[in-house]
Amino acid sequence: MLTMQDALLALQKYWTDRGCMVVQPFNTEVGAGTANPATALRVLGPEPWHVGYVEPSVRPDDARYGENPNRLQMHTQFQVILKPDPGNPQELYLGSLEVLGIDIDAHDIRFVEDNWASPALGAWGLGWEVWLDGLEITQFTYFQQAGGMTLDPVSVEITYGIERILMALQGVGHFKDIAYAPGISYGEVFGQSEYEMSRYYLDDADIQVNQRLFDEYATEARRMIDERLPVPAYVYVLKCSHTFNVMDARGAISTTERAKAFGQMRTLTRQVAQLWAERREEMGHPLGVVEPPAAAQLPAEMPTVDAPATLLFEIGVEELPHSEVVRSAEAVRDALVTKLGGTRLGHGDITVHATPRRLVLLVDDVQPREPDAERTVRGPRATAAFDADGNPTKAAQGFARGQGIASEELLRIDVDGVEHVGVVKTDVGRGAVEVLSELLGQIVAELRADKNMRWRDAGLSFTRPVRWLVALLGETVVPVAVSSLSSSRFTRVHRTAAEPEVEVASADGYGDFLAGHDIVLDGAVRRERIVARATELAAEVSGTVDFEGEAALLDEVTNLVEQPNPILGSFAAEYLELPSQILTTVMRKHQRYLPVRGTDGRLLPHFVAVANGSCDVDLVRAGNESVLRARYEDAAFFWRADQKKTPEQHKTGLAKLTFEERLGSVADRAERIAGVAADLADIVGLDAAERATLDRAGRLAKFDLATQMVIELSSLAGTMAREYALRAGESAEVAQALAEMEQPRTAGGTLPASVPGALLALADRLDLLTGLFAIGANPTGSSDPFALRRATLGVVSILRAFPQLKAVTLSRGLAAAAKRVTAQGVDVPESALADAHEFSVRRYEQQLLDAGHEHRLVQAVLPLADTPADADAALAELERLGDDVDFAALAAALQRVRRIVPAGTEAGYDPSRLVEPAEIALHETVDKVSAQFGADTTGLAEFVGIASPLTEPVNAFFDDVLVMAEDADLRAARLGLLATINSLADGVLDWRAL
Amino acid sequence: MLTMQDALLALQKYWTDRGCMVVQPFNTEVGAGTANPATALRVLGPEPWHVGYVEPSVRPDDARYGENPNRLQMHTQFQVILKPDPGNPQELYLGSLEVLGIDIDAHDIRFVEDNWASPALGAWGLGWEVWLDGLEITQFTYFQQAGGMTLDPVSVEITYGIERILMALQGVGHFKDIAYAPGISYGEVFGQSEYEMSRYYLDDADIQVNQRLFDEYATEARRMIDERLPVPAYVYVLKCSHTFNVMDARGAISTTERAKAFGQMRTLTRQVAQLWAERREEMGHPLGVVEPPAAAQLPAEMPTVDAPATLLFEIGVEELPHSEVVRSAEAVRDALVTKLGGTRLGHGDITVHATPRRLVLLVDDVQPREPDAERTVRGPRATAAFDADGNPTKAAQGFARGQGIASEELLRIDVDGVEHVGVVKTDVGRGAVEVLSELLGQIVAELRADKNMRWRDAGLSFTRPVRWLVALLGETVVPVAVSSLSSSRFTRVHRTAAEPEVEVASADGYGDFLAGHDIVLDGAVRRERIVARATELAAEVSGTVDFEGEAALLDEVTNLVEQPNPILGSFAAEYLELPSQILTTVMRKHQRYLPVRGTDGRLLPHFVAVANGSCDVDLVRAGNESVLRARYEDAAFFWRADQKKTPEQHKTGLAKLTFEERLGSVADRAERIAGVAADLADIVGLDAAERATLDRAGRLAKFDLATQMVIELSSLAGTMAREYALRAGESAEVAQALAEMEQPRTAGGTLPASVPGALLALADRLDLLTGLFAIGANPTGSSDPFALRRATLGVVSILRAFPQLKAVTLSRGLAAAAKRVTAQGVDVPESALADAHEFSVRRYEQQLLDAGHEHRLVQAVLPLADTPADADAALAELERLGDDVDFAALAAALQRVRRIVPAGTEAGYDPSRLVEPAEIALHETVDKVSAQFGADTTGLAEFVGIASPLTEPVNAFFDDVLVMAEDADLRAARLGLLATINSLADGVLDWRAL
Repeated sequence: MLTMQDALLALQKYWTDRGCMVVQPFNTEVGAGTANPATALRVLGPEPWHVGYVEPSVRPDDARYGENPNRLQMHTQFQVILKPDPGNPQELYLGSLEVLGIDIDAHDIRFVEDNWASPALGAWGLGWEVWLDGLEITQFTYFQQAGGMTLDPVSVEITYGIERILMALQGVGHFKDIAYAPGISYGEVFGQSEYEMSRYYLDDADIQVNQRLFDEYATEARRMIDERLPVPAYVYVLKCSHTFNVMDARGAISTTERAKAFGQMRTLTRQVAQLWAERREEMGHPLGVVEPPAAAQLPAEMPTVDAPATLLFEIGVEELPHSEVVRSAEAVRDALVTKLGGTRLGHGDITVHATPRRLVLLVDDVQPREPDAERTVRGPRATAAFDADGNPTKAAQGFARGQGIASEELLRIDVDGVEHVGVVKTDVGRGAVEVLSELLGQIVAELRADKNMRWRDAGLSFTRPVRWLVALLGETVVPVAVSSLSSSRFTRVHRTAAEPEVEVASADGYGDFLAGHDIVLDGAVRRERIVARATELAAEVSGTVDFEGEAALLDEVTNLVEQPNPILGSFAAEYLELPSQILTTVMRKHQRYLPVRGTDGRLLPHFVAVANGSCDVDLVRAGNESVLRARYEDAAFFWRADQKKTPEQHKTGLAKLTFEERLGSVADRAERIAGVAADLADIVGLDAAERATLDRAGRLAKFDLATQMVIELSSLAGTMAREYALRAGESAEVAQALAEMEQPRTAGGTLPASVPGALLALADRLDLLTGLFAIGANPTGSSDPFALRRATLGVVSILRAFPQLKAVTLSRGLAAAAKRVTAQGVDVPESALADAHEFSVRRYEQQLLDAGHEHRLVQAVLPLADTPADADAALAELERLGDDVDFAALAAALQRVRRIVPAGTEAGYDPSRLVEPAEIALHETVDKVSAQFGADTTGLAEFVGIASPLTEPVNAFFDDVLVMAEDADLRAARLGLLATINSLADGVLDWRAL
Repeated sequence: MLTMQDALLALQKYWTDRGCMVVQPFNTEVGAGTANPATALRVLGPEPWHVGYVEPSVRPDDARYGENPNRLQMHTQFQVILKPDPGNPQELYLGSLEVLGIDIDAHDIRFVEDNWASPALGAWGLGWEVWLDGLEITQFTYFQQAGGMTLDPVSVEITYGIERILMALQGVGHFKDIAYAPGISYGEVFGQSEYEMSRYYLDDADIQVNQRLFDEYATEARRMIDERLPVPAYVYVLKCSHTFNVMDARGAISTTERAKAFGQMRTLTRQVAQLWAERREEMGHPLGVVEPPAAAQLPAEMPTVDAPATLLFEIGVEELPHSEVVRSAEAVRDALVTKLGGTRLGHGDITVHATPRRLVLLVDDVQPREPDAERTVRGPRATAAFDADGNPTKAAQGFARGQGIASEELLRIDVDGVEHVGVVKTDVGRGAVEVLSELLGQIVAELRADKNMRWRDAGLSFTRPVRWLVALLGETVVPVAVSSLSSSRFTRVHRTAAEPEVEVASADGYGDFLAGHDIVLDGAVRRERIVARATELAAEVSGTVDFEGEAALLDEVTNLVEQPNPILGSFAAEYLELPSQILTTVMRKHQRYLPVRGTDGRLLPHFVAVANGSCDVDLVRAGNESVLRARYEDAAFFWRADQKKTPEQHKTGLAKLTFEERLGSVADRAERIAGVAADLADIVGLDAAERATLDRAGRLAKFDLATQMVIELSSLAGTMAREYALRAGESAEVAQALAEMEQPRTAGGTLPASVPGALLALADRLDLLTGLFAIGANPTGSSDPFALRRATLGVVSILRAFPQLKAVTLSRGLAAAAKRVTAQGVDVPESALADAHEFSVRRYEQQLLDAGHEHRLVQAVLPLADTPADADAALAELERLGDDVDFAALAAALQRVRRIVPAGTEAGYDPSRLVEPAEIALHETVDKVSAQFGADTTGLAEFVGIASPLTEPVNAFFDDVLVMAEDADLRAARLGLLATINSLADGVLDWRAL
């Protein structure tokens, strides 16, 4: 059995054999190998750098006295930096697993999307967590930015979690039981230190001392930056960071301190990075400068084909994020359609397929070449082209020369009745290969996803590296050259295949070809197979899988594998005592396992994991079970630990959780929410029981965000509040309200059912909206970091669902929220409130449109959107009225009135001025109708009922009366009469939209 | 070629293959691998621990901006701890050199005494620096104490200096040129950091910030000790230590601060160690407890021999300190003589030989057994033994029974004329083997050296481990068992021999036997061979070696090798431009090379190194040359750098050098010295030129202690002062005085020649003596850490050599020094001054005795010792007078006078009272003699010249006169007369001693 020290030595050996240097762990505390200057500074700038090293990584917040089997205040990372990207880092990485004794054929090893960003450090990258039978063992990142600087070249960062890997390899359940060296366990070597440092970090560190240390370190760091010494400056930044983490673990960071500290560290880090880069440049980049790989070249001569053939174009990628698999395929198809449309190349059907590792375009019956095309080129007018003798003038000769023909060959052509000389030219159709070569190259170059990155091929940008291209027209390779990539007839199949790169003979039957290599190209087929096999497996334990409920997860796992291999696993039934949301959340979010339920819908102690391709099923099952066991063990630990505190006690912990720098802590926010909810309750008026529930729930609002369970599994917010509140003796109503305040969780998600829950949920979202607009953190473009769109949809949805809360208009809600934000010292400009309102209305509008309501009708009811329930009712009425002739006539009449009355005309008129019978008749009808409106008449149906008598007199008025009379008083009376009609219809609808 | 990273991996592999764990470098700055808790804490207590690890070791004071080829602010150690001592750590270590690619057969690898102690940490150990062709590559220590706690079991600590080893292996002259990894140099990886961290440590660290950090860390450490958490406490102790080093490198540590800081760190370290040990005990020693090796057993039956034979007894040791080689051999011989003397075993001559690895006793003609011996046992008196009937009484019967005989067998014996009963018993002689087995074991068990240590064999204590015993009586093994060691017939020869352990057939011819294995047992022969070969080698370059001048060095190298192999090496002639004392100091002190001189006595660019045993001479020569080159390069660097500052500028640096906690900095001491010298000058009165020289030299006193050269090579103090002063434009006289103030350097060393030099030298030593006595730091027993004995001898020697400075008596000198010490706030008690005076007189006395002066005469002149020049003159006169009859008569007469006069009798008398002619004659002579004495008559010769007329009258007086007359007045007059004579002789000599 490989001991931990063997593993570390094996990794060092493996990576040095592949050109990496070994350096030592850093000699001040760091939170991760990334923080070591061998990464943090060396990834900056153009110099090459290949390094591998062990890094004992200190995370005070993870201190658990050595008691938690998986969590340590100091864990061991092995960190690799490959700069530049060597082009095959995944393959290199898999090789390293083999030297650790991991049989990559037998295990299920997967690259699962996991991006990394540290806005505080101005750093981010895209990549994966690597799964070994469901266990995250490595973080694999294409480092894009660090210290606020874009990285060029990009570095590949591979971070192994050594304790996890060793626990899995050695089959032990607690890190202390890892065989560290022959005859000595991890616990024996590090146990005492783990306990004592946990004591320091969690209980005994002096907060004031650490605060002063932080300040001293920051001062030194700044001074060293001024001295242009990035290395010592960075050392002190690291010391700042560690000290901050110590204070944080002690629960000693107030919001203000946190904001200040982050600000300081961010600034220092960026300045250090900038300075390092400058210094390296001043030194002339001692390690040299990375040259980009040579650009691929097209052959001088393109091959030709002489018969229609199938086009296969495969873009081979490293594992795509599941959400990009289908989206990218569609985008590639659209691009191909557009680009082919710009050519004369004939072709048949276009189909597209995608797996995590390939986007495949298939085009039937591509014609061997474009047809030729004729076009006429116009020369001088005939009158100027020939002299009196009919001989070509100099102008005609020049034109002919320019077109490469003799003057005699000039034709006479008619252009809009004027005779010109001209020539008819034939555009010879290009060969299919030539056409395709160009446009396929463009497709690759223009590939973009939601989040894009760079890698070795400096000319490309996509969500993950493109590593190969297969382009075949029938059996002929279509040469494609983009950046350093060239197309070929070689594709890549499973990395664990005996021959991972295989030759493709022909574009025809490519799906079958891949199937022969255990790859299911068609996502729909993969999905079906998962459903079929998972159903079989669940049935083995008399269970079922709720595929409908798990549709999103099913989509995800479908696009995480090239060949789904569902495996049934089990867990100890005792964990079923935990709330089932905990269990399913862990299964879905963390592990992508399908939960298995009994016929009564209750969870069974089983799950279906979907492995990729063939593997040793028993081994992979055991691995996945072990991961789930560890996670459930963690959750059970949290479950027990959290219940040792009351909700009130948890609530005090919210003060240390920052919500947003300017908007304070989560405690501040919870206080605001409770206040807003109370204000809204005052507006609508609750009965005593509801009010008591609201007040109590408001007092506990968000307490579960401070529980270990929710810190670990944030999507359980609300759920855990309910569970813990019930167990702490709160009433069912309070527990329900606490859970409901987090609803709806998604667009279209379940809404609160109780009024207190609805008010809290409204208050929550109104506070978010108001606060963030107040500080200018409005969503822009695709950026919506606080999910304000979803929050606002929540507000609207709740208001629509609770007509009894109609008194809470958007305006009143936002005003109530603004009052609380202001009370905490954050100014809420009027314009911000107006913008928030507008933003809400736009969300409502979108919601209506998305639901399929007619644009015209939606526009008509928008003036009512401040009370969405009213607008909903109006819209329903409009839709009910549909083709109702009378209503249409009324609407038309009212529109006529609106069109003629100038803006600003006041309602009211002197009836004695009216002279014509039609206008007098209208006056009388208006009088009658007006009298029927009450103060609270707002609904459309009511309005129509009262106002429909107006239709006929209005139409008569316009038929008989000239509004713009010469007599000013008369004109004023007529306009006043019409304005009065307008005022009656105002606020009912936007009549112009109809 | 092995790169540095290969080397580190190879060492990890080597030591893990031998049961060591690998751990990571510590994640806070440490000055050495020893400081890592994996050493500092784990060596405590009874648990086993085997570990090897890399440790980047930070020494801010060694920062050189990366410019110095051999000195780095962060160098790399590889640290191994073997606990317990496995019994063969040197052999294991040599194996590790082989994996580094070092051919230990070809190179000259040596274990050269180098002990380690950190009183501040309560830690010490004995061991060696390991030399590779003269280059120190490893520190090898048997760790005896840490954190103030005695270590049991002892740990072996092996610390490799990786950069040095790699520079040697790769043949590069600057650390930056080390190939760190394929294609990348050390400088490329670490150069920028080396420069920038040097900037921080030397120039830019904020002193106040670091001072505050120190205080904060110390506070946390103390708090964690109170919390009984040794691990975090120790982390903070390390942080204290690093911060202290930073401030020190910035030159910011005042004496008071240093004293305080060391005190704090010492206390904290000890408390942490104590606490760690307690905690481990409370935890039940999780790693188990080391059991001592099994005790060796003697056979049940001892072999016998039947003829006289030679005894060979070899105590095989790891390399002894050179000074212990001869001393230990003599001690063993003495022990053997004594112990054999306590037996009846007959034997011939005893000879003893020693090399660094063996103490060999040879005893000729050991008889096969002790002869039997008879002895008489006395019983009761005969009168009590027999009753009236002549029958034995009960008493006699009891005695007989006690002796195991029948009453009838009782003999009658005469004891001092009284008849007793008795019995004659025969003590049967023991066999030689039995006798020797016991006493040889005792000799080993009782072996002690100047400094002793413990190792694996818990029952033994010696300066270095005893690893084997050969005990042969002729061809018979004498079983010896001591601790876990058993004797055998196997000895060990060179470790690089094909067969390092060989069988010894017989005790006879053992010297030849060893010679056959290239070991020269006889130290005298080794010495001769070195002289002969070094002479030959020097002659090859027309040079000679001053063996007389290098006698101490020659003794040393003789005892550093088992087979001397002198090798001639060279260095670049350009280094001869450096002052020759620098060159020779480096050669002697650091490298143990014999300097080679031309016929004119000037240095040649050559040296003779003495390797051990056979080796690849060219390789070893090249290695030694390279080491010397590096050292000279260092020296040249210092030489140039030091001259960039004036002596005054250097002088300001003295403030940061602590002399002694209570006595302040070296600057304080230099100020006192200058003051004392000025006071002494006032006493003796100098001419203007001398006074100017003294004042100037006083102002610069000790400045060179702040130069890099003297910090590196402390024995060049004074020498460098002269050289730098001259080059800075000081006068030759001032330069000379500065050099002379450090003289004499040793007992019998060169004395100052100039008066200013002498006064400064006196002042220097008087300050040392007075100051240290004032604070109670008197030498006690063998402890004399400030070398006060030598300093005091210096005072006496100078005073003896400068009769013109006679006015400076010891008393005046000490008083002058006391004044200056007091002025700096340190109280000098009267008793301390008296003790210092007495201590000085005793040194003078010892000096005279050591020089062979007769004890009686020395005692006689000691009353004059306050002015040693006078005492010298008196002693010389006494010795000149020798058997002079008249002087003897005078002395006898004066002694008669002294004997009879009671103490306290005052001189002076009433002559009119005298009555007898003899007394009147004496009175008249006394009158005459008295009149001839002047105020300044003190010398013995003068006294004798004047006083000799007293002899005859004194003798006549005693013949004729009864001093103790009945008449009181007469008696008083007679005693007064004699007391007057006494007073004339007082202070001339201690006449009683003659």
